[in-house]
Parts: sequence; C-alpha cells; structure tokens
Amino acid sequence: MAKSDVKKVVLAYSGGLDTSIILKWLQTTYGCEVVTFTADLGQGEELEPARQKALLLGIKPENIFIEDLREEFVRDYVFPMFRANAVYEGQYLLGTSIARPLIGKKQIEIAEQVGADAVCHGATGKGNDQVRFELAYYALKPDVKVIAPWREWDLTSRTKLIEFAEQHQIPIAKDKRGEAPFSTDANLLHTSSEGKVLEDPAQDVPDYVYSRTVAPEDAPDHATFLTVDFERGDAVAIDGVKLSPATLLAKLNDLGRVNGIGRLDLVENRYVGMKSRGMYETPGGTILLAAHRGIESITLDRGAAHLKDELMPKYAELVYNGFWFAPEREMLQVAIDKSQEFVTGRVRLKLYKGNVTVVGRESPYSLYDQELVTFEEGAVAYDQHDAQGFIKLNALRLRTLGQRRKRMGT
Amino acid sequence: MAKSDVKKVVLAYSGGLDTSIILKWLQTTYGCEVVTFTADLGQGEELEPARQKALLLGIKPENIFIEDLREEFVRDYVFPMFRANAVYEGQYLLGTSIARPLIGKKQIEIAEQVGADAVCHGATGKGNDQVRFELAYYALKPDVKVIAPWREWDLTSRTKLIEFAEQHQIPIAKDKRGEAPFSTDANLLHTSSEGKVLEDPAQDVPDYVYSRTVAPEDAPDHATFLTVDFERGDAVAIDGVKLSPATLLAKLNDLGRVNGIGRLDLVENRYVGMKSRGMYETPGGTILLAAHRGIESITLDRGAAHLKDELMPKYAELVYNGFWFAPEREMLQVAIDKSQEFVTGRVRLKLYKGNVTVVGRESPYSLYDQELVTFEEGAVAYDQHDAQGFIKLNALRLRTLGQRRKRMGT
Amino acid sequence: MAKSDVKKVVLAYSGGLDTSIILKWLQTTYGCEVVTFTADLGQGEELEPARQKALLLGIKPENIFIEDLREEFVRDYVFPMFRANAVYEGQYLLGTSIARPLIGKKQIEIAEQVGADAVCHGATGKGNDQVRFELAYYALKPDVKVIAPWREWDLTSRTKLIEFAEQHQIPIAKDKRGEAPFSTDANLLHTSSEGKVLEDPAQDVPDYVYSRTVAPEDAPDHATFLTVDFERGDAVAIDGVKLSPATLLAKLNDLGRVNGIGRLDLVENRYVGMKSRGMYETPGGTILLAAHRGIESITLDRGAAHLKDELMPKYAELVYNGFWFAPEREMLQVAIDKSQEFVTGRVRLKLYKGNVTVVGRESPYSLYDQELVTFEEGAVAYDQHDAQGFIKLNALRLRTLGQRRKRMGT
Amino acid sequence: MAKSDVKKVVLAYSGGLDTSIILKWLQTTYGCEVVTFTADLGQGEELEPARQKALLLGIKPENIFIEDLREEFVRDYVFPMFRANAVYEGQYLLGTSIARPLIGKKQIEIAEQVGADAVCHGATGKGNDQVRFELAYYALKPDVKVIAPWREWDLTSRTKLIEFAEQHQIPIAKDKRGEAPFSTDANLLHTSSEGKVLEDPAQDVPDYVYSRTVAPEDAPDHATFLTVDFERGDAVAIDGVKLSPATLLAKLNDLGRVNGIGRLDLVENRYVGMKSRGMYETPGGTILLAAHRGIESITLDRGAAHLKDELMPKYAELVYNGFWFAPEREMLQVAIDKSQEFVTGRVRLKLYKGNVTVVGRESPYSLYDQELVTFEEGAVAYDQHDAQGFIKLNALRLRTLGQRRKRMGT
Repeated sequence: MAKSDVKKVVLAYSGGLDTSIILKWLQTTYGCEVVTFTADLGQGEELEPARQKALLLGIKPENIFIEDLREEFVRDYVFPMFRANAVYEGQYLLGTSIARPLIGKKQIEIAEQVGADAVCHGATGKGNDQVRFELAYYALKPDVKVIAPWREWDLTSRTKLIEFAEQHQIPIAKDKRGEAPFSTDANLLHTSSEGKVLEDPAQDVPDYVYSRTVAPEDAPDHATFLTVDFERGDAVAIDGVKLSPATLLAKLNDLGRVNGIGRLDLVENRYVGMKSRGMYETPGGTILLAAHRGIESITLDRGAAHLKDELMPKYAELVYNGFWFAPEREMLQVAIDKSQEFVTGRVRLKLYKGNVTVVGRESPYSLYDQELVTFEEGAVAYDQHDAQGFIKLNALRLRTLGQRRKRMGT
Repeated sequence: MAKSDVKKVVLAYSGGLDTSIILKWLQTTYGCEVVTFTADLGQGEELEPARQKALLLGIKPENIFIEDLREEFVRDYVFPMFRANAVYEGQYLLGTSIARPLIGKKQIEIAEQVGADAVCHGATGKGNDQVRFELAYYALKPDVKVIAPWREWDLTSRTKLIEFAEQHQIPIAKDKRGEAPFSTDANLLHTSSEGKVLEDPAQDVPDYVYSRTVAPEDAPDHATFLTVDFERGDAVAIDGVKLSPATLLAKLNDLGRVNGIGRLDLVENRYVGMKSRGMYETPGGTILLAAHRGIESITLDRGAAHLKDELMPKYAELVYNGFWFAPEREMLQVAIDKSQEFVTGRVRLKLYKGNVTVVGRESPYSLYDQELVTFEEGAVAYDQHDAQGFIKLNALRLRTLGQRRKRMGT
Repeated sequence: MAKSDVKKVVLAYSGGLDTSIILKWLQTTYGCEVVTFTADLGQGEELEPARQKALLLGIKPENIFIEDLREEFVRDYVFPMFRANAVYEGQYLLGTSIARPLIGKKQIEIAEQVGADAVCHGATGKGNDQVRFELAYYALKPDVKVIAPWREWDLTSRTKLIEFAEQHQIPIAKDKRGEAPFSTDANLLHTSSEGKVLEDPAQDVPDYVYSRTVAPEDAPDHATFLTVDFERGDAVAIDGVKLSPATLLAKLNDLGRVNGIGRLDLVENRYVGMKSRGMYETPGGTILLAAHRGIESITLDRGAAHLKDELMPKYAELVYNGFWFAPEREMLQVAIDKSQEFVTGRVRLKLYKGNVTVVGRESPYSLYDQELVTFEEGAVAYDQHDAQGFIKLNALRLRTLGQRRKRMGT
Repeated sequence: MAKSDVKKVVLAYSGGLDTSIILKWLQTTYGCEVVTFTADLGQGEELEPARQKALLLGIKPENIFIEDLREEFVRDYVFPMFRANAVYEGQYLLGTSIARPLIGKKQIEIAEQVGADAVCHGATGKGNDQVRFELAYYALKPDVKVIAPWREWDLTSRTKLIEFAEQHQIPIAKDKRGEAPFSTDANLLHTSSEGKVLEDPAQDVPDYVYSRTVAPEDAPDHATFLTVDFERGDAVAIDGVKLSPATLLAKLNDLGRVNGIGRLDLVENRYVGMKSRGMYETPGGTILLAAHRGIESITLDRGAAHLKDELMPKYAELVYNGFWFAPEREMLQVAIDKSQEFVTGRVRLKLYKGNVTVVGRESPYSLYDQELVTFEEGAVAYDQHDAQGFIKLNALRLRTLGQRRKRMGT
C-alpha cells in the first residue's frame, strides 16, 4: 500500500512495548494520525497506563479510546460459542479465537466514528490472529485499509525492535529487552502460551509457563462442589446466586484456578497451514463446557443433540479460522440457538485436582423424569413389543444385503 | 413366532442366573435344542463354571461353546473404533456398544456350524443391546430366527424369575435373590452400570457402584508417566514393550484403575427413544483416546484430521445404534483407516488422580519438525507476505457482502 | 389396542371407496363415533361429494370437517422446503412427503376441538406415509390413539374389501371393483404413482400412468419463456404478476404440464427398509427448484450456499422420513431461512419439451454486479498478486505432506 | 522470485498463441531452458502442430513432450469422480476442475525426469485453474518453483501481447489478433466458456458460444435409446459393446451432442472469492451421471447411498478447489469406492431433445427384486405389524417433547 494513502488509522493498542513500537512506526512510516483502542477483555491488566503511554507517545486525548468489553465479550461471543459446545480439534476451547472478532468490530466502529480509513493490529505474519482480525475488518468495512506491521516492516529481530524503541524514546521495561521465552495472550476466557520453550512437542511444558491455574498436584485435597444454573443455554447463576455473564465467568475462573482445572497442552493445525504447539489455560471455560453438556443431557432431544454434535466441528473451525462474521457461522448460530430454547435448569459439579465432573442435573424442562423413566400408565407408554418391529424394520435393508451376499456366494 | 418353529438355538450364555433361566425357558417353552455360547471378552469372570452349569442344565457337551475373544475383540473392534476417536454424545466411549456385534457374529458362526436356525440373547426390551445383537444377527444371517425372552415371556418380576429358577432346579446365589440395586455390563474396555439407584440424574453415583477404578481421591499422590507407541493408528507398545492388543489394553486398564481414570456419569439418548442415565468406567480406553489424539496431532494433516472430526459423530452414532455391519459404517471405516497410514510414533502421558495428560509426542512421520516450525531455507519456506494474499482472497466474499449491506443501508 | 378404548376418532377421509370402507369399519369394529376430515391440498377433486358420502354413511353433520388447505400447504410446507432446495436421493422432490404432516396436524387440531381421543389414516403398512402421519400425530398429541386399519384388519384382498363394502351399502364405482393397475397420490405439488405395473424397475413406465404432464414429445415445438420473482427465498410473481403461493404453484403446474416438465421414474429407498419404484410428476415444482437455484446463484454467498448444500441431504431425509415436527428439522429450517434474507430478485426461464433452463437472473441484492466482476477501482479491488499468497498458504500443508513422503521414500 | 533462480522450467504448452507468448517470455525473462508439455485430454486439437511450433520457437527436440492422456484422464480422474456423483453447487459437473490435477502431475513427472526446478502454467490470476495447477505442483514436488506469467508480467492488454508476439516472431492467426468474445476450455468431458459476452448473468447465452452440442430444438424429433453397462461403479459398455473409458465417454459425447444434452448456464462461486458466470457443455458426462445414479438406485443400500449424498458436496468442493491430491479427498474416495463394490449392471436410457431419462435398470446384484418387492415367503419377510413398533419407538422422543410442551403450556 502506498504509504501516503493512509490518513488516519485505528490501532489495537495494549500499551505494551510491541504495540507502542507499532504506534510510533505508524507515525513515522505512514505519517498518519494514530487513534488508539485499548480494550479490557479481562486480560487482567490495568487500562489507565495505556492511556498515559499513548499520551506520552503523542496521541491526542480525543484519539484515545479505552473500553471495558468484558460483559459484551462474554455475553455476545463466549456464551453463543459455548451454546455450540465448540471445541477445535477435539480439545481447544477457542479462547483466543473468540476475542479477535470483537476487537476488530470495535476498531471498525471507532474508525467509522472518527473517520479513519485504516486499521492496524499487532499480530504476526505466521499466526491465525492476523486472519481473524482482518476478516472481521473486511467484513464490517469492506473498503478499509489494513496495516499489519509484522508483515511489512524490517524490524525483524528483537535487537532491531529495541533499537527502534530507544531511538523513539519508547519506555522499555527491563524484562522486555531480551526475547521472551514464550508469548502469551490472555482474556477472561483463557490464557494461551506458545513459541520458543514450547516449540518441541516432545518436551513437557515447563512449570513457569502456567499462570492461570495451580497444578493439580497443588490443588486442595478435598473436592469443591458448586451448582451452575442455565437459562436458554446460558449460565446465569452459581450456587443459586445470579451473576452477570462476565462476573459469572470470572467466578468460574477462580474456582477452576484453585482446583487446577483447564490446562491443555496441544499441537494444533493453524489456518495458515502449519502445525503449532500451544499451551492453554481455560479454567472457567472448562467448567462451563462440562456444565452445559450436563444441562443439555436432560433438556435436549436426541435429534437436536446429535445435529448439534455433527455441526459443531464446522462451527469450531469457522470460529478458529476467523469467520465469525460470515453468513455460514450465523446460519449455524441460529440453528444452535433454536435448540437452546429449553436448555434451562441446574447442574451440580464436583471440582477436584484438575477434574470437573457433573454429579447431578435437574430442570423443569427435563425430558428425563420419573414418569418417563419408569414408563408407568398415564405418561408416554413404552411397550417392549414395539422394540421387535423397530429392530426388524431397521434390519430389513441389512437382511436384504445379507441375502445378496449369500446369493453371490461372497 | 410359532414356538414349534425353532429347532436349535444358539444362546449367548454367561453362566449367570438370568441366562440360566433363559436357557431353561427355551427348553421348556420352545422345546428346542439349546446350544450355549460363552465368550471371554475380558469381563473378568471364569468361563469354566459356565460350562459346568450348562452341563448341569442338560446341555450336551458338544453344544457348549466357550471362546476367548479378547484379542479379536480389541484388535478388530476396539482398535478400529479408537482410530476414529469415536465418542458418543461428546463423552461415552462406547464400551458396551462395541462388544455386541462380535458376540452376535460368533453366535451366527456357531449357528451355521451346528445347523441352528435361531439365536437368543438376554438383553431387555428397553435397551440398546437388543438392537445391537439383532442387527448383527440379521445382517450376517438374514433368515435367522431371533428369540428375545425379555420381550416375550411373562417372568415380569424378580419374584417370578426366582420361582421359575427354583421350579427348574437352577442354582441361585444368595445375592441374586433380591433385586440388584443396579445392573452392570463389563468387558475389557469398560464396565457400565445403570438402573435403580442410578435412575435419578440429580443424585450423585453412590461409591459402591464403581468397580473398575479407584476414586481420584484414593489414587497415588504422585503422577505416573508412561509412553504408548502407535503403528498405523493402533497402540502397539507401552513403555517400549510390545504387547498384543488385549494385553496392552489390560495394562492400560491397570494403570487407569489405580490412578482413578475413566469414570463417567452420563445421561444419554438411547436408540430406542428414551433418555437413560449410566455410569461408565473406561480406564484404559480413556488413556488410549488421549494417546491416540496425541499421536495424531503431529502425524495427521489438517484436512484429514478435520474430516475425521466431522465424520466422527455419525460413526459413533452408528456404533452406538448397532450398525457395525452396515455398509455406511464400513465406508467410514475405510476412510478413517486410510488416514492412519502414518499415525505412527510415541506419546508420553502423565496420569494423576483422574487426569490423563499428553506431555510429549514424537514420530518419524511427524508433520511438525524443527525445519518446518522455524521454516528455514531448504525446507518448505513460509513467506509472511503470502499471508496478505491469503487473507484478502478469503475476505473477498465477506467484503462483497459488506458492500451489499452498505448499498442496502442494512 | 382394546377396541372399546376408543371413543371418538378423526379419520382422514377422501370420500373414495377405501376410506369409506375404513369409515364403516371403524364404526363396526371400534363402535366409536367417527369424525371425518377432508382436505383440499390441490389434488383436483371436488370436496362436496365427500360430505354427501359421509352423511350417507351416517356421519353427523357437525362431525364432518372439510377444509381448503391449498394456501397453507404451499406457504407453510412447500415453500419452506423449496428454500432448502430439498431433493431426496438426488432426484425426488418430496411431493407426497411434504403433504402428510399438514394433514396430520389438522386431524389433531380437530381431535382437540371435538374431544376425540383417536385418529385414523388410510395408509398401508408397507409404505412411508403411515410413518409420516403417525409421527405428526404423536408429536402434536403424545397421548393420541392411532388406528391404522391396513395394519389391523383382515380385509387383506380386493375381494374381501368389495364384499365388506357391499355388505355395508357403501357405493362402489364400477372402476373400483378390480385391482387398480397402480396407485396414485396427488396434491398441488405432484402426482405419484406406484405399484403393480410399475414394479419391475427394468421396464419403462407405461404412457397411461402419466396424468399431470404431456410427454415431451407432445409438448409445443417452440419454447415458452417466463420470469419468476422471489422475495426472501419464496416465489411471489410470475411474469411480473403477483400471485398467492397456491395460485403461483398452480400456474407453474400449468406451464410445466404443457411443456412436458417434471416427470421422474425412480427407484428409491423407503424409510421402512425396502426399495420401491415410483413415478412422479412435479411440473411446477421442477420449474420452481430451477428458478430458486437461479436466484440463489447471484444473491447467496458461497459460504451460505455450500453450507446449505451440505445440510440439504439430511433435511430431505428428515422430510421424507416424516420428521417434519422434529427439533432437528426446525433447527435446519431456521438456518436455511436465515440464508434467504436477500434471496430476492427475478429469474428468467425457458421451458421446452421437458427442459427447464435458467436463462437470466437479476437482483437488487446481487453479489455479482458489474463493478465486482471487473473489479475496477472504487469497488472491492481484486489484486492478482494476492492469488499467490492464497495458493501458497493453502498449499503449505500439502507441501509438508509431500516432504514427508519424500523423506520416507514412499 | 529472483529471475536468475530458475534453471529449467516445464511449461504446460497448448501450441496456441498465449502459451507461445509465455514460452518466449520465459526464455527472455528468466533466461532459462524451457521444456514443453502438450497433452491430449480430448480437447479435439491436433498435437503435432504444437511440436512444430515449439521447435520453431527454439525448443530442443528432447525438451518437447507430447502425450495422449485420454485414457488415463477418464479412467483415473473422471470415473472416480463420477462414482461420487460429484456436482458442484448443485449443477456443475466439474469438467475443467478434474483435468488440472492430471496436467499438473504430468508436468511434475517430466520435471523430475529432466531435472527441471520449475513449472509454469497459462492460467490467469483471477480464476480457479491457477489454484488447481499449483496445489497439484506443490503437493507432488514441495520444493518446485512455480511461474504464473499472468500474475507476473506486464503484458496486461491484448495489444501488448500482440506486440510482444510480433516482436518475437511468434506466428499469429488472424482471428487471434483481437479480443475473443469469450474464452473456452475443452477436454473429453466438457467445454466451458466464460468472460466478455457472458458476463451479464441477466442475458441469455448467445447461440454461437455453444460448440459441443446442438440446441435441443435442433435435435432429432425421435428419441434415442441406449444401454450403459457398469462394473463396480464404472461404465464399461454401451449397447452391450465393451469400450475403453475414453472411447466410451467419446461415444456418450456423440450421443449427447446430437440430442442436445448437457448444456448448463451457471453463476458459480469461485474459490478465489468472486462469483463468475460460465456456460458448460458436458454431453457425455450428463448421460453418465444419470446412468450411474440409475444403476446405484437398485444396487446401493440406503445407508451407503445416503452417506454418499451427504459426503458429495464436500467432495465436489475439494475437486473444484483443486485439492485432488489432498488426504481428505483420498479419504472420501476410498469411502466412495468401497460403496461401489456391487454397482454393476445395466441401465437403459432415453435421450430426447435435451432430456436424458433412465427408463430401466437391472443387475445381478440388485437389492430390488421380485421376491423382495412382494415379500413372499422364503425371502426376507416383511410383517406389516412391525411397522407399528418401528413408528412408536421412532415417535417416542417426539411424544416426550410433546408432553413437555403440554406440561409447560407452550
């Protein structure tokens, strides 16, 4: 892109060293006005320092946007995804994937508001996040210009980055001078770590990489029990206490953390084509998934449940690949949401040293209740003789095949 | 079926009270010759007492068939299913489901051998097992007559069963006189329990129901580490020691048992239409699934892996519903098996108080190796600039949609 | 079912000989009050004679229900199904399948209204229609009693039926005394024929079986052109003239009939397990499907279109099998309906001797328009260089596989 | 790519003006040795002129490769794809898509043979073919260099191309001086046309665009009948005469051509992200698809048939997108091939003015035969009473849902 083309850019700005370098690089390379957007998605960092740093780097006060997105994040992104029981490649709860569309959407909203023609993110050129950010940008503002510094600049080593920072008076925390032994991403749903010390998939994850959970070995010796209440597929209360989406997830995170729940060491397939090894900590999400499956098990009909299971891998792939704002994700979402109409009730769970176990479920909408189980008179009756006809007609085509086999002597 | 139509019947005979009653009931009601088939699928019971009991009940020695099926069971049923990472309704490892087709197949083979025209099983009229047995029978011998006593007789209470047993001099163990508090099924892969004390899904599973695993709380305070070697998708060695399929699974069961691994409390949807609550213990299988996913994570291409994940729910449903011998299961199997060609290598696992964690994986066929990760020269190069084109073409349709939205003012 | 258990039954009554026999049989066998329900679904028969005949057979005037369901049928059943482009086994447009749930639903509504405890249909015991009727009944009124005379009575031959009719003074048209050479079902969407002369799938369908279309050979020698307008996935106008759903389909039927469109000779797989050979005439529906695919081709995004194509076989199977009122059909429907939001515009078609061809499509919501095709400045730009990155990242995993193959010498 | 990096390149060379320009451009721009590969895939052009032209342009005789691939094309690419009944977006028979992997594979084989380090194709930067070629190249030779002149050079107009040709003494046929009104691709399976006069999807395809079929209006006034014999899913004979794959397809093409069969006017979604409008003529393939579905209808079990229908859209998408050599396509292929074991028999077809109709099917492996249809004694018996149990158990979950609805008053 011709550098002179960009007039105003909205940068996803964390306040950290890397995005501060990007901020300065945008000013010096593109000569454009920079608008910063800093979001609280529950990553556990103060936002005000980001404002101070942006001011220090010459951003006009009216160009600094800081927003607490925690409730929106959980309510409109995390919860809809958990309605789908979405798990990527059988294991990953999509903690990073689900945050990117929201950040992208907010950047575009700000761009529309301040009349910016470009947006910028700090994701590298080898990862999935660049795709997730940019697909969101393009879907919501098709004519937007996208700047991805890590794919463009020549600051290709830590040394060059530090030099650039020093040259532009960007404050550098001591521990940021050297290469980090791994990189992390965090939000209310999870913390992920990857790179460097994690790159050999034959080697165990070093203990110091974990930050969101205690080791199962260090968790309490006695189990913790809790209940989670659901309404229409979403968790609404813990131990009977109603909580907002973000507060509820935070509470589950606390419970998961101390009980050593939600660690995952995974080699996964990136959308950009290579395998990577990551370590994920999703304490609350791991509990939530188990609880949701628990309440679904008594309130969801088999046909709906199996259809959901069949659609899930595609849904998870779409979220992972960054297609949150694509029509096919929205089609799957309405189908999933339709199924959640009666997914209401209470699940009781046991947490113990890394294990989360559903130990009870009840619901006014239960499809499993006394009269149905025992099939006494008055309810839907179950006649054992019906099973014969059921089996015989299901067997009919297999018998026909068997006869052909016999006829053919094969 | 007209009672006089049956001449000789092959009964799936455990040697226990219930199938002994069936044996006698067949003799007295159908007046037919009874052939017994007792299989060792690793349920952990002696087989010789079954022979003695059959003799006692008047079965001719040449009509008593006893077979150790453990290796065949694991090699030709359990392992192919685990290649698929098959899990029913997100959680159940299909331990009962996978054993039924093999028993059915053996009954039919014996029927052909001894010239029997009928087969008989002891499954009830409300469960899935009747379907699994009978679909196997009909698929393999389309003209076979099927006798399902629990759907036919009038021995509809425990009292009547005991009366019938006493009347026919069938030995009754003391603990079999009353109603069992729950019923179980066991084989080398798992033990399942259901009924009575488990019928309220809001209530926790009582401790005494578990028989195959210690509670996580009672497992050792230190982790156990092991390696599992795979060849073409199947486990072949533990800690470097080659083991036959059944021996290997038994070894994993031992490891799982002591470490409290593989308990599952589940409300599931039966094929015959109602929900039921079951408790499953699958110690070795739970380890095996984690290990298999671990080795696949470095040896399986993304396209193959995702296709497998998409096909899996249907595969699992087919196995659960009893369609092992159906063409669509066989089609899925060859597709799955094709993908396993290079699923060879070693996985290192950690077992600790109910947790099974993959902590390392390596393979000569790894698609994740040093030169690919760092993408240095000489190997497949990764050019970060390619990501831009990749994203832009993937975004093209989303941008077009965005433009329509803008054009329409929606 | 104990005969004395039924007090009042709602019979799906056509006024023809067979359902008149059923009517009388219900009275004499069950000794219950019979309520008749006769619906106009566009089968092309007068309804008043059915009323007269019901009166003649002793039905009280207040127990005779006659309803014109044509608009409801097309609007709420046919059109939603066509939004899905539903085709069973690659060819069958589901004309019979889609009518059954509506009839079943109306019977249940009448049963609730008149306080009937039972419903009755005239479908045979070998076909799909019994399943479709009864699944509808049970879904909508779980405690209803279902009477299926063809599975119950001993009127197992034409002779016995005629005897029964004569015995009970049921009028018999001359051409109804013998066995029909084939049986038919008709409604506004299609006419199906099967049985007897059609039973050998190696033999061509005799000319006299066709009733809804001329042979292509007898169609006009010049093409007919028409336009169909769509709004949100549903056809709303022909040649610019707005028409109600039923009127529109009737008009398409007329156009299809004269142009020899919509004949299908098919061997299909019934839900009850056997193959059957049917002949279908769906003149208007065949045009409608082509038109709908035509308008979708310019208004539907690829992601949405491909997801629809992937879901369609399951949707069609559900409709065919009679699961219209099942949650999984409803989930699929909302996903499909979601995709139809902008499926609005005009399709031009050519009809000629059995062929229906889309020759033009246009829409205010088109995703294919001049600026997008030529990709000039100002619109979404397409940079050919992006293709390289797109291809290289898509190729990355294939290259990695290729390297493994080379490394392994395989 | 640095121009000096390429030493020897294998060019897919048609002998036409465009690839001759590419040939010369490679010599002048890359200064590398050019190897030409010209394949006969049934496009209906002489190959020897391509050799003469290559010699004329300075290619060494030993660097000119000409191969007749017609049999390999049909046997190993077209037929496997037709086993899947593959249709892209409901209509397109994938005639262009299926040819590209074979050409790519041959280029790579020649590259290995002559020690070339690069390959080159003449596909444009906006289409699917570049993807198909290059995915094949990269899959089979991961370190190959790919040259795509249309994405690289500055010959961006017809005028510049002609100038370049004149400048380098490339012979120019008179009709090649101006812009063609549309572009075409042809092989034994189909001819496609797109661009220019076809770009407005609201306008009909002009008559002169068609080259492989007569208009239905100009086809004979009487029907043509033929039989096609299949063995294990592949066509092997027409009217009882055994034919090789390519000869058979050519024969079907002749029959299709004169009867006006196989024209398709389509707006489709390209993999690179935009919609395009194409016109396809697939005379023989259209007959083959109908015939294959016909023989499957009596020889394929329902479970296998429905699984095939569900997998098909993904299979077709993979072929369309160019993933022929991807593991997931191969997995689907083995599943499909497995299903074809008994797809053997004879189909009788009627061709008439654009219509192709199956009018009879027979097979020694038929799952539809007299004894099964009428279900007389001795065969697999069908007991109508079984239908009741079948329906009631299938209805059980719907009844349970209905009861919940009633209980909840919803």
